[in-house]
Amino acid sequence: MRTLGVDIGATTIKLAVVSDAGVIEAESAIPTPKGSARELVHVLAERVREIRSAYPEIARMGVGVPGAMNRDRSLVRYPPNLVGWKEEPLKAYLAEALPEFERIEVDNDAKVAALAEARFGAGKGVSHFLLVTLGTGVGGCVWSTEGEFSGIYRGASGGAGEFGHTSIDLNGPPCNCGSRGCIEAYVGLHYLAERTKKKLDADPSIVSTLRAAQGELKPRLIADAMDAGDAFARSVFEEAGTLLGRALANVANLLDTHVFILGGGVAEAGPVLFDSALGTLRANVLANIKPHVEVRKAALGNHAGVIGAAMLVDDRSPG
Amino acid sequence: MRTLGVDIGATTIKLAVVSDAGVIEAESAIPTPKGSARELVHVLAERVREIRSAYPEIARMGVGVPGAMNRDRSLVRYPPNLVGWKEEPLKAYLAEALPEFERIEVDNDAKVAALAEARFGAGKGVSHFLLVTLGTGVGGCVWSTEGEFSGIYRGASGGAGEFGHTSIDLNGPPCNCGSRGCIEAYVGLHYLAERTKKKLDADPSIVSTLRAAQGELKPRLIADAMDAGDAFARSVFEEAGTLLGRALANVANLLDTHVFILGGGVAEAGPVLFDSALGTLRANVLANIKPHVEVRKAALGNHAGVIGAAMLVDDRSPG
Repeated sequence: MRTLGVDIGATTIKLAVVSDAGVIEAESAIPTPKGSARELVHVLAERVREIRSAYPEIARMGVGVPGAMNRDRSLVRYPPNLVGWKEEPLKAYLAEALPEFERIEVDNDAKVAALAEARFGAGKGVSHFLLVTLGTGVGGCVWSTEGEFSGIYRGASGGAGEFGHTSIDLNGPPCNCGSRGCIEAYVGLHYLAERTKKKLDADPSIVSTLRAAQGELKPRLIADAMDAGDAFARSVFEEAGTLLGRALANVANLLDTHVFILGGGVAEAGPVLFDSALGTLRANVLANIKPHVEVRKAALGNHAGVIGAAMLVDDRSPG
Repeated sequence: MRTLGVDIGATTIKLAVVSDAGVIEAESAIPTPKGSARELVHVLAERVREIRSAYPEIARMGVGVPGAMNRDRSLVRYPPNLVGWKEEPLKAYLAEALPEFERIEVDNDAKVAALAEARFGAGKGVSHFLLVTLGTGVGGCVWSTEGEFSGIYRGASGGAGEFGHTSIDLNGPPCNCGSRGCIEAYVGLHYLAERTKKKLDADPSIVSTLRAAQGELKPRLIADAMDAGDAFARSVFEEAGTLLGRALANVANLLDTHVFILGGGVAEAGPVLFDSALGTLRANVLANIKPHVEVRKAALGNHAGVIGAAMLVDDRSPG
């Protein structure tokens, strides 16, 4: 059987025909339409119908979306990177626009990535892990195996996993959530870029090729400078890893989680980030957990979204 | 059916005959024997046999102990308040000393209290809660309902729930676990007493009856001063609540937990602590959780240990 996996991002919507074995048989992408949820669904449905003309047997579709879901995953709630969206019944809109589909499921993008990593990636065979998506926002998914249950930890109203909004410093930098010291306020893409720029501005003695950079200091740019030998650029990721490790340590102690899987743009910084994160994590967890902690890179990269979205329709965690 | 519930504390062992309805039919206590785990079991077994001579039908016993357990709960690991204990096979020792019992189970004291609160106390009917025990240490238990599972969240190796060792300040005061800024390093009994004393010493202008206190500034002492109108004493609990609220907010965001149940000695401070904790919690959680968060007082007080211990043998969460 084949399933359609859809990964709605802030700038691009990716679509893929995915086999039950998690293999991508065809892929496609469209720019994310700006405007209402209904307008997005309208444009998306056109592309879906095109794909279905080549794969007429496909009757199941899973969709990942960058926003919090309600308990039964019928509503996407105020996704910060889909401007103008409020509480949107995305599943119902899709069902209305694509009646030829027997089953459509929608879930948060980090949850969808966790499903893919659990089944085919860095979380395969792991009973408990935290998946962290390091992007504009810092998303997360707590994967748990407790008793008869194994899957995405949902919490009391379906919103669990907001690792990005766990704080490591009660007096830390303000986060756009209203709290302070959230890990997102340190390593979220814009925060990281801004802090890096401030450091350069504050200390004229720092030698770095990043001074010449135009526009925002995106992780890719900093990583390229680091790879070319820029010591300051390297220190940016060392610090990011160190801070991240403290937030991971809190999760390790609270949930006895040993495996941490990092994905998303900032994770592209590579070993420096991972080594720093692991060092701080290990230094700050309880003695019995210390020997067991691991920080892994997400294995499916950009494809986790579409593969995991496809998994939604045959491996949906209980609501 | 009746069950024997045993609550091993640092200074006292409490024993109770508990009905299936959670009613205590008889209780008893002995001072906690100092020395090895075997020695403790020897003394405990004598008292158990005395109780059993009055209730010969009792064949099940549950035991709560202040220490981390391994995954199958056969070992108690380095309990900080039972001096001289290392990794102790407490369950096997008890089975050996009390062969007349058909079933014996041992679990961490915070987990046992959570079982009791879930069944008969402040957690009754609540799908997800965090129980926090505020004592010498700050213990915790994550109670979860996910899919087919409802019970104590155990984690990868059985050690989940160490809320006391989640940090709210990466540069905060050192904790005896080796990390910094753990909530236990602020509101654990000795830390709280010490910080309070330091404040008094540092500022001679503070007017407080606590200056005249002999020995450690125990929560009961501070609470009594507060109840007698001591504004400084009140500020101690306000600050403790404020700090606690920040640590609770991290759990609320990570796990979408709405209900927080506080028990133990420090919780005796009453409304001031609870109000401060709730205020800070509400101010620091994500918007969708804000209207739902609650901080409740543990309902079973001193009896949660023995009642929950008895529950262990008929409501054991899957290992």
